[in-house]
Amino acid sequence: MYDVTAVRQDFPILSRSVHGKPLVYLDNGASAQKPQAVIDAVTQAYAMEYSNVHRGLHFLSNLATDKFEAVRGTLKTFLNAGHEEEILFTSGTTEAFNLVSYGWAAPRLEPGDEIVLSVMEHHANIVPWHFLRERQGVVLKWVEPDETGALDPERVLAAIGPRTKLVAITHMSNVLGTIVDIKSICAGAREKGVPVCVDGSQAAVHMPVDVQDLGCDFYAITGHKLYGPSGSGAIYIRRERMDEMRPFMGGGDMIRDVTRDAVTYNDPPHKFEAGTPGIVQMIGLGAAIDYMTGLGMDAIAAHEADLRDYAMDRFKGLNWLNIQGHAADRGAIFSFTLDGAAHAHDISTVIDQKGIAVRAGHHCAQPLMQHLGVTATCRASFGLYNTRDEVDTLVDALELCHDLFA
Amino acid sequence: MYDVTAVRQDFPILSRSVHGKPLVYLDNGASAQKPQAVIDAVTQAYAMEYSNVHRGLHFLSNLATDKFEAVRGTLKTFLNAGHEEEILFTSGTTEAFNLVSYGWAAPRLEPGDEIVLSVMEHHANIVPWHFLRERQGVVLKWVEPDETGALDPERVLAAIGPRTKLVAITHMSNVLGTIVDIKSICAGAREKGVPVCVDGSQAAVHMPVDVQDLGCDFYAITGHKLYGPSGSGAIYIRRERMDEMRPFMGGGDMIRDVTRDAVTYNDPPHKFEAGTPGIVQMIGLGAAIDYMTGLGMDAIAAHEADLRDYAMDRFKGLNWLNIQGHAADRGAIFSFTLDGAAHAHDISTVIDQKGIAVRAGHHCAQPLMQHLGVTATCRASFGLYNTRDEVDTLVDALELCHDLFA
Repeated sequence: MYDVTAVRQDFPILSRSVHGKPLVYLDNGASAQKPQAVIDAVTQAYAMEYSNVHRGLHFLSNLATDKFEAVRGTLKTFLNAGHEEEILFTSGTTEAFNLVSYGWAAPRLEPGDEIVLSVMEHHANIVPWHFLRERQGVVLKWVEPDETGALDPERVLAAIGPRTKLVAITHMSNVLGTIVDIKSICAGAREKGVPVCVDGSQAAVHMPVDVQDLGCDFYAITGHKLYGPSGSGAIYIRRERMDEMRPFMGGGDMIRDVTRDAVTYNDPPHKFEAGTPGIVQMIGLGAAIDYMTGLGMDAIAAHEADLRDYAMDRFKGLNWLNIQGHAADRGAIFSFTLDGAAHAHDISTVIDQKGIAVRAGHHCAQPLMQHLGVTATCRASFGLYNTRDEVDTLVDALELCHDLFA
Repeated sequence: MYDVTAVRQDFPILSRSVHGKPLVYLDNGASAQKPQAVIDAVTQAYAMEYSNVHRGLHFLSNLATDKFEAVRGTLKTFLNAGHEEEILFTSGTTEAFNLVSYGWAAPRLEPGDEIVLSVMEHHANIVPWHFLRERQGVVLKWVEPDETGALDPERVLAAIGPRTKLVAITHMSNVLGTIVDIKSICAGAREKGVPVCVDGSQAAVHMPVDVQDLGCDFYAITGHKLYGPSGSGAIYIRRERMDEMRPFMGGGDMIRDVTRDAVTYNDPPHKFEAGTPGIVQMIGLGAAIDYMTGLGMDAIAAHEADLRDYAMDRFKGLNWLNIQGHAADRGAIFSFTLDGAAHAHDISTVIDQKGIAVRAGHHCAQPLMQHLGVTATCRASFGLYNTRDEVDTLVDALELCHDLFA
């Protein structure tokens, strides 16, 4: 049985107040809070076990290297990758997509080649592809969700033409909460010989992910949303795709030999991990993944499904609340506006006074905002420590907003 | 008066033992240990003040943003940059040099254009330029130090030709400890209209740095060597150079507007900082810089000069110890080999049993190793918490090594 009261006690920040009210943290889509286990892992690494990794032979260097490299195995299991070498450490999904863009796509795509992406993508999964459009004439082809915010895999597959070299798509919309049927997209794209790059920034936080079952080529996750440290992350890259990549960043560790006239590169994964890595960040991410899998990804998903259903039920009673997106398969992420004059930023500011943290703005998803015909929304995004009571607190605060601005 | 005993008490790891012996940490050139003030700043940020930055309006988001952005001011002061906007946050010097290579050099340099660099550079300040050689025909011109390991600025300036577009050079060799006269190089290069990119990974740890006085165009530092968190760092970029740069990584925060067909970019510095940054890492780096400046960079430099002189004096008595480099102006970094059969790795392994952490290998500086005619050295690199007693412990252990392998 999932004991959310006990879970909450693992997160020190949840005991604090904001503006004299208990913190109600519903900004998990932007970044999640950290359990004591992660904080302890970080503290222990700095206070007693710190050294640079890989290049040393002394005790602390070996200790730090063992702890750091063990996280690769943790992430392999978390994503069910086939091989540890298919896991690359990154500073987050932004670096991951830039790695794919610079390392895999830039040297391969010709002017007129196409990348298919949805209008629901986060800017992290858009701007690196816009670079290729600006710099080498790659064409971006956009696929729209239906009126519920669901994305029909057939629409994505229908957009694939003979010049399509990549599909870049999110597993879960950070604005609508829509869960995308990545498995069907990958199966169809594979038949056409087109690799699929998946943004797992949101999905991997909320449900079990199996990259082999999905059949994707690239799957990026970001540690700070996974209850882990800022500046941590990883990307799964299918071995065949990694073999096609050239290095992205140059520096120490990613080389075998450097002379004045030439460089030879290290084997993957190190070939794609230049310089001193985010040693302690990755150790902290390992602790975060252990924490989540300790609770159980299925149990987390079930808890959040309950929150989602409860919230949707409560929201139904508010006929002046406009929830964006009603896909059948969705997570506990709600973007909304209020009827009347209230701007999303005003709503956020008012309910902040009640201790509630939500985000207001374009959520780094401007093409989706344009598609929806809005400039900004408020977003309440739930995590593994949120409760039905917090849904009630949010609803009360929104009613206050409605009264205030109506 | 610099009280090293009190300083040592600020670093929890220095109280631990290794193989039953007190830890003697002389691997600061690879990465430095962290004072309690840094660990506390990191813990406080995660435990009580955490949120994503920039994009929120709620209390925690504003709090985290204020703490994060304040570090830009701290770094501006630390490096004496003219403007806060000239400080870009990075994950370390490796990302910094790749930013300069991808963002400034790649779109500007033509086949046959030249980059001048010294053979003393770290791979982080070599491989990004090799990429330009491999990918677009840029020519690397190498400058050698003299037989003492000193680098005559005139040699660097003499290597600048009409096709030279950049000088990339270290401020302090991570192998020899040589301090380079960057100011003279910058003055001469400026007369010829050639920008200078400086690797401050080592120098900024050990002495005051004033980028305006140096007159450089780019100056990169890395947090993990500055007693700060892994995954933190920054680069000073002179405003005129930043204006010439195109974005490196694409994602959130670095854009102004994204549509299906176009992107417009944010103002610097944000234009060059894509995605969720290393929030807590940078807050921790701020605490590290505050710690160092609290001790005083001049006082740190004086303490380390004493250690350097004491060590050189003790080493003089060991006629089977070969120290690489004897430049007049040098820091407390010593690379050495022993006469006889001992490989650098064997030395490191033996003295590790005495609790002493030194590095053995090529120190990510293979062109320098080739120049010196060695494949590997041992390196003892001192920091602000090291002592004369630790020099004695090192000398005793080296004598043991000599007896063992002679």
